[in-house]
Amino acid sequence: MDFFFFIGSLYSYLSVMRIGAAAREAGVPVRWRPFNVRAIMLEQNNLPRSNPVKMKYIWRDVERRAARYGLPFKPGLPFPVDPQGLANRAALVAADEGWCEQYTREAFRRWFAEHQAPGDPGKMDPRLAALADSEEIRRRFDEQTQAARRLGIFGAPTFMVGDEMFWGDDRLDEALEWAKKR
Amino acid sequence: MDFFFFIGSLYSYLSVMRIGAAAREAGVPVRWRPFNVRAIMLEQNNLPRSNPVKMKYIWRDVERRAARYGLPFKPGLPFPVDPQGLANRAALVAADEGWCEQYTREAFRRWFAEHQAPGDPGKMDPRLAALADSEEIRRRFDEQTQAARRLGIFGAPTFMVGDEMFWGDDRLDEALEWAKKR
Repeated sequence: MDFFFFIGSLYSYLSVMRIGAAAREAGVPVRWRPFNVRAIMLEQNNLPRSNPVKMKYIWRDVERRAARYGLPFKPGLPFPVDPQGLANRAALVAADEGWCEQYTREAFRRWFAEHQAPGDPGKMDPRLAALADSEEIRRRFDEQTQAARRLGIFGAPTFMVGDEMFWGDDRLDEALEWAKKR
Repeated sequence: MDFFFFIGSLYSYLSVMRIGAAAREAGVPVRWRPFNVRAIMLEQNNLPRSNPVKMKYIWRDVERRAARYGLPFKPGLPFPVDPQGLANRAALVAADEGWCEQYTREAFRRWFAEHQAPGDPGKMDPRLAALADSEEIRRRFDEQTQAARRLGIFGAPTFMVGDEMFWGDDRLDEALEWAKKR
């Protein structure tokens, strides 16, 4: 199963923290795929923060869901975050090196539990930041986003099981069931 | 629990067909409240049909969820429907008369299983259509929509438990749990 996420997406937090255990229990291998959902949502005029009524609900809903899952949520977190995409490109480096889950969980934990915004170059490991800023990784991150566009992805998190798309943390269990049936 | 729905909202179908049994099992009384979510979504520039990429997913997701719940879904259904709001105003009449669930389930069933678009005056009971077109019901339907606006509702279905809002068919079970805890 391909797991498309974005460090900066509130609902991605819930899936980032849950998918490891849930996928292991289901016996489904997961490929972690950070991508620039913000660029896609801007293109589609589909950014929820342009709708304050909906955004107010989203904050409350994410807080309620985090409590349900026993995940930290300290109200008033910085948003939006990672303006340059640095944290997300670093996630791609970590994916190449095989520790994307560990990197991403820690980035989200610091953001949601300690209000440390992802993408602050001063708080990032210099080796990781340098790699994340390389031409090679910038190009490959754009390619990941282009791949998501081609698949018809419009939001994050999104789970792909073959051609079957599941959007939103609410669909994680259904996506894993689908993957198991194949 | 207040159940805000719209005859014309695809995800409302899933909740309209499920809420009766689920709420009875939970022992939670439900007040059926049709409202004009389309007007609200237009005001908020939040109509999914303006985003064909997202809309393609929604069709697939609703079909998949309907199958999961054992509900009829005949692909290619007419959309959008009820351009004048007649079917929704008729639902308000039925709510006043105590048979809103029966009326609304049948309207959705005909739409999803038989492709009969709700809101066709030629296919509606003349007594119901006349009441739905009365000044009184038009005014009260606008008031229902205004009440939804004031509550911060931005989509359908929405479940209100006191001030606590739950949006989307995915949140029906959580809303019922919340109502039981009160």
